Amino acid sequence: MESAAIAPNPLPNYINGEWCASHATEFLNVVNPATAEVLTKVPLSPQSDVNAAATAAATAYHSWRRTPPTERVQYLFKLKFLLEEHLDELARTITLECGKTLAESRGEMQRAIENVEVACGIPMLMQGYNLEDIARGIDEIMIRQPVGVVAIIAPFNFPGMIPFWFLPYAIACGNTCIVKPSERVPLTMQKVFELLENTGLPKGVINLVNGAKEAVDAILEHPTIRAISFVGSSPVAQYVYSRAATFGKRVQCQGGAKNPIIVLPDADMEMTTRITADSAFGCAGQRCLAASLAVTVGEARHTFTEAIANSAQTRMVGYGLDEKVQMGPVITSQSRDRIEGLIQQGANEGATVLVDGRNPKISGYEQGNFIRPTILQNVNPNSELARTEVFGPVLGLMHLDTIEDAIALVNSGQWGNMACLFTNSGAAARKFRYEAEAGNIGINIGVAAPMAFFPFSGWKDSFYGDLHGQGRHAVEFFTQTKVVVERWPKDWSRQF
Amino acid sequence: MESAAIAPNPLPNYINGEWCASHATEFLNVVNPATAEVLTKVPLSPQSDVNAAATAAATAYHSWRRTPPTERVQYLFKLKFLLEEHLDELARTITLECGKTLAESRGEMQRAIENVEVACGIPMLMQGYNLEDIARGIDEIMIRQPVGVVAIIAPFNFPGMIPFWFLPYAIACGNTCIVKPSERVPLTMQKVFELLENTGLPKGVINLVNGAKEAVDAILEHPTIRAISFVGSSPVAQYVYSRAATFGKRVQCQGGAKNPIIVLPDADMEMTTRITADSAFGCAGQRCLAASLAVTVGEARHTFTEAIANSAQTRMVGYGLDEKVQMGPVITSQSRDRIEGLIQQGANEGATVLVDGRNPKISGYEQGNFIRPTILQNVNPNSELARTEVFGPVLGLMHLDTIEDAIALVNSGQWGNMACLFTNSGAAARKFRYEAEAGNIGINIGVAAPMAFFPFSGWKDSFYGDLHGQGRHAVEFFTQTKVVVERWPKDWSRQF
Amino acid sequence: MESAAIAPNPLPNYINGEWCASHATEFLNVVNPATAEVLTKVPLSPQSDVNAAATAAATAYHSWRRTPPTERVQYLFKLKFLLEEHLDELARTITLECGKTLAESRGEMQRAIENVEVACGIPMLMQGYNLEDIARGIDEIMIRQPVGVVAIIAPFNFPGMIPFWFLPYAIACGNTCIVKPSERVPLTMQKVFELLENTGLPKGVINLVNGAKEAVDAILEHPTIRAISFVGSSPVAQYVYSRAATFGKRVQCQGGAKNPIIVLPDADMEMTTRITADSAFGCAGQRCLAASLAVTVGEARHTFTEAIANSAQTRMVGYGLDEKVQMGPVITSQSRDRIEGLIQQGANEGATVLVDGRNPKISGYEQGNFIRPTILQNVNPNSELARTEVFGPVLGLMHLDTIEDAIALVNSGQWGNMACLFTNSGAAARKFRYEAEAGNIGINIGVAAPMAFFPFSGWKDSFYGDLHGQGRHAVEFFTQTKVVVERWPKDWSRQF
Amino acid sequence: MESAAIAPNPLPNYINGEWCASHATEFLNVVNPATAEVLTKVPLSPQSDVNAAATAAATAYHSWRRTPPTERVQYLFKLKFLLEEHLDELARTITLECGKTLAESRGEMQRAIENVEVACGIPMLMQGYNLEDIARGIDEIMIRQPVGVVAIIAPFNFPGMIPFWFLPYAIACGNTCIVKPSERVPLTMQKVFELLENTGLPKGVINLVNGAKEAVDAILEHPTIRAISFVGSSPVAQYVYSRAATFGKRVQCQGGAKNPIIVLPDADMEMTTRITADSAFGCAGQRCLAASLAVTVGEARHTFTEAIANSAQTRMVGYGLDEKVQMGPVITSQSRDRIEGLIQQGANEGATVLVDGRNPKISGYEQGNFIRPTILQNVNPNSELARTEVFGPVLGLMHLDTIEDAIALVNSGQWGNMACLFTNSGAAARKFRYEAEAGNIGINIGVAAPMAFFPFSGWKDSFYGDLHGQGRHAVEFFTQTKVVVERWPKDWSRQF
Repeated sequence: MESAAIAPNPLPNYINGEWCASHATEFLNVVNPATAEVLTKVPLSPQSDVNAAATAAATAYHSWRRTPPTERVQYLFKLKFLLEEHLDELARTITLECGKTLAESRGEMQRAIENVEVACGIPMLMQGYNLEDIARGIDEIMIRQPVGVVAIIAPFNFPGMIPFWFLPYAIACGNTCIVKPSERVPLTMQKVFELLENTGLPKGVINLVNGAKEAVDAILEHPTIRAISFVGSSPVAQYVYSRAATFGKRVQCQGGAKNPIIVLPDADMEMTTRITADSAFGCAGQRCLAASLAVTVGEARHTFTEAIANSAQTRMVGYGLDEKVQMGPVITSQSRDRIEGLIQQGANEGATVLVDGRNPKISGYEQGNFIRPTILQNVNPNSELARTEVFGPVLGLMHLDTIEDAIALVNSGQWGNMACLFTNSGAAARKFRYEAEAGNIGINIGVAAPMAFFPFSGWKDSFYGDLHGQGRHAVEFFTQTKVVVERWPKDWSRQF
Repeated sequence: MESAAIAPNPLPNYINGEWCASHATEFLNVVNPATAEVLTKVPLSPQSDVNAAATAAATAYHSWRRTPPTERVQYLFKLKFLLEEHLDELARTITLECGKTLAESRGEMQRAIENVEVACGIPMLMQGYNLEDIARGIDEIMIRQPVGVVAIIAPFNFPGMIPFWFLPYAIACGNTCIVKPSERVPLTMQKVFELLENTGLPKGVINLVNGAKEAVDAILEHPTIRAISFVGSSPVAQYVYSRAATFGKRVQCQGGAKNPIIVLPDADMEMTTRITADSAFGCAGQRCLAASLAVTVGEARHTFTEAIANSAQTRMVGYGLDEKVQMGPVITSQSRDRIEGLIQQGANEGATVLVDGRNPKISGYEQGNFIRPTILQNVNPNSELARTEVFGPVLGLMHLDTIEDAIALVNSGQWGNMACLFTNSGAAARKFRYEAEAGNIGINIGVAAPMAFFPFSGWKDSFYGDLHGQGRHAVEFFTQTKVVVERWPKDWSRQF
Repeated sequence: MESAAIAPNPLPNYINGEWCASHATEFLNVVNPATAEVLTKVPLSPQSDVNAAATAAATAYHSWRRTPPTERVQYLFKLKFLLEEHLDELARTITLECGKTLAESRGEMQRAIENVEVACGIPMLMQGYNLEDIARGIDEIMIRQPVGVVAIIAPFNFPGMIPFWFLPYAIACGNTCIVKPSERVPLTMQKVFELLENTGLPKGVINLVNGAKEAVDAILEHPTIRAISFVGSSPVAQYVYSRAATFGKRVQCQGGAKNPIIVLPDADMEMTTRITADSAFGCAGQRCLAASLAVTVGEARHTFTEAIANSAQTRMVGYGLDEKVQMGPVITSQSRDRIEGLIQQGANEGATVLVDGRNPKISGYEQGNFIRPTILQNVNPNSELARTEVFGPVLGLMHLDTIEDAIALVNSGQWGNMACLFTNSGAAARKFRYEAEAGNIGINIGVAAPMAFFPFSGWKDSFYGDLHGQGRHAVEFFTQTKVVVERWPKDWSRQF
Repeated sequence: MESAAIAPNPLPNYINGEWCASHATEFLNVVNPATAEVLTKVPLSPQSDVNAAATAAATAYHSWRRTPPTERVQYLFKLKFLLEEHLDELARTITLECGKTLAESRGEMQRAIENVEVACGIPMLMQGYNLEDIARGIDEIMIRQPVGVVAIIAPFNFPGMIPFWFLPYAIACGNTCIVKPSERVPLTMQKVFELLENTGLPKGVINLVNGAKEAVDAILEHPTIRAISFVGSSPVAQYVYSRAATFGKRVQCQGGAKNPIIVLPDADMEMTTRITADSAFGCAGQRCLAASLAVTVGEARHTFTEAIANSAQTRMVGYGLDEKVQMGPVITSQSRDRIEGLIQQGANEGATVLVDGRNPKISGYEQGNFIRPTILQNVNPNSELARTEVFGPVLGLMHLDTIEDAIALVNSGQWGNMACLFTNSGAAARKFRYEAEAGNIGINIGVAAPMAFFPFSGWKDSFYGDLHGQGRHAVEFFTQTKVVVERWPKDWSRQF
């Protein structure tokens, strides 16, 4: 029985370099979404646990900040190798608690590792700038210094990757850090923290607090915590953004999405449908860069519709630990019910259910939260289905006459996480890149996830703040600029 | 009578390229703080005026954003020359409504111009970055695009300079802009907008809305306005930060300060006292970089105390338009009363009023809001005087034994705008630069205002947000990153 | 008679803030290439003149380098406005001595001005970088300082623009400078230096030495001159590169080119031919970014050939001062003879002279060095015509079957200045951009001249060195990095 | 007998992924400078070996350049760990062939590893930049692409470190590479290449050619090799610079030095003498950042002289493999003779030999090339000793009255590699930093070696070129900028 071995029960927190029991009085079952098996229990840590973590982080800060950047990154170099060494174990853990396929879990951890690699470059990335003689004999220098104690609040859909959009940069810049993973998928960070511990990081530099809303609120209100990085749904993102601001913190919040893919008639249809299906149904549609609307323009319609329907129907759904499986379950049965309800609502609003993945029979996994890939045709742009983030393996199809119409549709929504175009036309690509109001744009790409050395650039209601995760933005977010103006009276040097 | 000629009464707004009457029903007198003369009336614009400005800005945005950066900066090159040409007129206006001396007003406008100069470099500064082959045959590019309609909310103490920490960058980056100046000092922006109009900027790109809280709230809530830059007191800064966040906007808020100056025994006392007096009493102490506490260490005490007292007593106070005058009045009589109250409170808390500037007689300006330079000795670090932003020409003196104690004092307060050290010791300077928790540090400098090509780096409660005004930070704040991932199947190029 | 008024005869040098007669004993006539009229005489300055200029520049350096960058750029802001004010006069001068049309001359000066604009951003661009705690308590900072006295050696084809790829950056960075214009076209720099003088630049900061090889050799050998920027033909570029290196100088040399344009079948033929004709025949083909080979791929052949021939035949050739004229003469009669010889050689090598521009009759300008647009068809890729820089209005046509063949042709030559592609295929554009071995690439662009905020990126034998002119490269070239490592023993700060 | 095991005899080259015998007909003994023992024989590879390496590198380039940067750096991550794992073995090898102490050898390899770490950041560092709408609808992008085949020519004094100023950047940027180590110390690169091989780098990406002048000349003349990085003595640096330029290559050459240390009276004498002794006598004075002149100012003289003499006399000299030893031998007996001759010449020129290290008796190592630390007092600034690079453990002392005199002395020499100041005065430090004409400045630092994330900034005759090794400069040197200007006619996108 695999799950028994994977973790203590209930899960401990990791505070000040020690694994320690939460002071929680409430606990939540961590459930394998494919089998409904209970993997462990996670504590819903109370404020006192957050306080302890903040104190540990604040105490560690003094010395960690004074550790040279070149030394700080040595822990990250080690971490990269530990993550690679334990990649399969981490991937299995993700699949166990989150449901996605092993290939998806491995890919997720690969993205995490890439962020570690980029943060290894902190001695270069953290540099400030300077100019001599801003006035005669007066020099000015900008130095980047860490902000202090920072916190990361992560969602359930990428338990291994998303904390890494922030954590490696935060600690490489000299901050100390608290991570609160999603209470649905706490096992992956448990394992990651075991590896972090093995790097020999000084105690208190990194802290893990399991929990849910009470822990989040405690983080938002704690006076010592200076910066918050959040990823989750838009309503919660907005709550976190507003609350963190009320407490005067710097804050970046990534929210939801409704990502359209536009297919022009000159697109390579084989490639386009393959990529679109991967985008819409990969991770069971539970990612903020999942394509959820596919808009065909002109003659692209019929070929695309037929091919994507075929792709949806033949996608192998099952338990992610099975290497043949192409799509796993969604995270909870509530989530499954909500998705099925949205499909029905789409139908009620006039769309045709072209491929219906509801109530599937997945032999041997009758208790799992499965939905098969689902496609709705003729989705009304003003319908709720067209406007709501489904976060499930559901793709809506629309048809428009021109690229202008398609861009107008892209720009009409509240979100701006991703928009993709399939074409061979350089002119169409430029127009789309220039005009589409989304921070992540794909050209013949279905999941336009920026590499770790680029910011993850949500726009509009997909993001609240200005500096994003990853790369230079993360470095800017996790440092504060200090400007020093110096005058050294020259006659003082004459004394010698 | 100079004031009659300077402006219409009541002041109009400037919306969509037109000077137009506000829909206000309430108006406020704009009063010369040295003479109590009413200069004009300013409308307290209602929400409808903000709406009109936002609509104009949104309409102008489409075309302004498509105007090449190289063309956009041509308006700024023109603006620089117009500002220089009208420097004296602008300086007189500042002095008239704000009270500071002409030299101070000219210096302020010089700082404004420097920001225009830096923003002329937008074709370089706004560049994105890119990498080929993030995977085989896939390229990634980050493009900076403007955020849309942005708003600037400015305080009374630098009516000419502070909007320029933001405005030139905002429009150079392709945004359109609304400026709400302080209702106490609306005349300077009135003149600046006349010059902006003369640059030929397309209508709607820049808009001026006079007003107070109602206008601010309308800005904070307006869905079209995407970003807010605010400078003012810390409580209002916190309000704006929190409200803007509630409405999902990007926001940067600069607040108050309590800036300490540390004097080591090896400092050049003549230079140190001269600079400290300029910092504490310049602009009548009404600047966020005014020194308000001077802390002597060791033997520095007696020489410094005597010299600074002498400097305070001999400072020439009067009407700023008189070129001989070294210090003008504070902004309002309420402000004067509040400052005098804080002086008394300091005395009540145990400090000695070494130089008492209360109730001065400024011949010919009996109605003006004058306070002479005031020095309190033996200020208790825990007293209200030591903790409160006075925003008047009041300097508190303290004495400590070591530089460690002095740095601990610097770091004990809620604010972190500026901290200065006077010494010839490179070691002391490095220690201070490294440890002092303030974003603007001066070494033998009394007003460590960053040049326009550096961010204005308030810390702690002196600033809410992450990206500051000026330089690269302003460019980052006024642009959003768009990441494009491109794949161009290579067999497509084989068709030829 | 216009020419009489335009300049003294012989032309003076400008050294140490004074216009002064050269010590030359040899002089060269400056001849209007359209009329053969002698405009003035230019001295072939001897070594002693270069020595005087180097001494003046070295003397001025001490103080100029100490002038704050913010002050140094004020001269450039003024220069921008003076250049704009005198744009027509400068354009006429260029046309008079160089032959190109007024529109071309104005465009040239516009590019010069853009470089001045970019160099106005030096306070930002010249910044160094820094990091605290490279080891515990040790900081490191890189400061950019100027290199000293630098020299610019310019060619005849852009008398107004090319010195500006270097000069504004050189002086903005704090260097002092010597310019040696082409002895064929010295009048434009004469006028530019009059404007430079009017900016009030301190004497010795900029110096003008007219002359030819003796002056060049004196510059190359002078020990005080630390850096050389050269633009000219490749053989001379190689000579200058090697000689400057022998004398230990930093050096950048831009040479010749043979720029191919590739036309794919999906290109917009109207646009393509118009742009190609402008590229091939603009400035009478005398620019390093002139298209000199047009390669059609697949079906593009016939439409393109017909259209480009028509465009060549109908191009209005004449005196550049006539606003209707579309193309002027080449620089000298020797040049014309050389070009006509190369056309004949092409014919001898098997190409067909499709449009023959030799021996044109330009009524009223029988003494001018005119050649009409010329097109050779079926140029053999291995012929001398296909391999030699013609520097005249001569376009060779080739035809190839695939884009691969076309790219192979682009990459087969010795030069790498520019390569252009006309297509609507994003895939073809990416392939071309990725593989074509040229530093300046055009996609649906005929003259891919980088803007001033990008480096002018010649490759292979089109450039010797690493850092190019313009933008960040110019700043890097005209500064030297100084790295400072600092340790301040912390116990020293304990003395207080 | 340790040496027998360490390497094949004669040493092979490493070309195209294979260890292969040189075609050399001449060989040189590699001699342990402490024991005179012959360690192995090194081939003096002829032109044909260089040709083979260049061919291998050119062949490998096509595919290596197309390997994504994120994949290319994986080899460097591995290399970092292999170098760390084999640190002691590498250090022993350095000590064996080069003579320095084990601690020095380990420190050297640490610096090598730091360069590998920085080059791991290539996905960030290699990014180009871009701007939309340089004109309406036209975009411009600068892409960095590798230059092709590059060569590194290294000196004897840091056999492990110096190739790493270049190699990691060169290959991370997509170039393929040839390394020619010094024929005196070829064993270290032999070991390094064994580790490079173990990273699994594709064949031909890195190549090792042992040899001397014939190999250097073959590299300089080979048409396929596009860039040369050289470190050695100034005369050879100048030769390489000039020859590489003659063949049109990009080239950077680091040469010799004569590094002064200035001691002000307020310096901490204990620290200053300790650091100065380490700088002057570390690596037996055989490093380009060795202090070779110590200049006392004012009262610093007597304390310093006494202390440094004592430090020199008590320095433990011997075989570097002995952990107690503080200084090893110089590289060859010829070198020792030359150094002893320079000491004598100094004495002849009027200096006093305060500590005479000539003809030492190092028991058990009578055949070694030992000189003990030597100090000459009252060195005449114009003497040959004061002007010549000794490259041995010889420190000249001078005394001057003022810091101005000291800076004048620093600036009077031909070299500009390093200058250091010892003081607690911030004013003196600023003056020195501002005025001293050297690219590497130390403040209370004796060996101001820039970290890998800063350029190694020699000035004047210590460096020929503009871009240095390490950090951003190395990336700029090993890439060429490609500027792409794109226009995509908008009506083309209307077709859909």
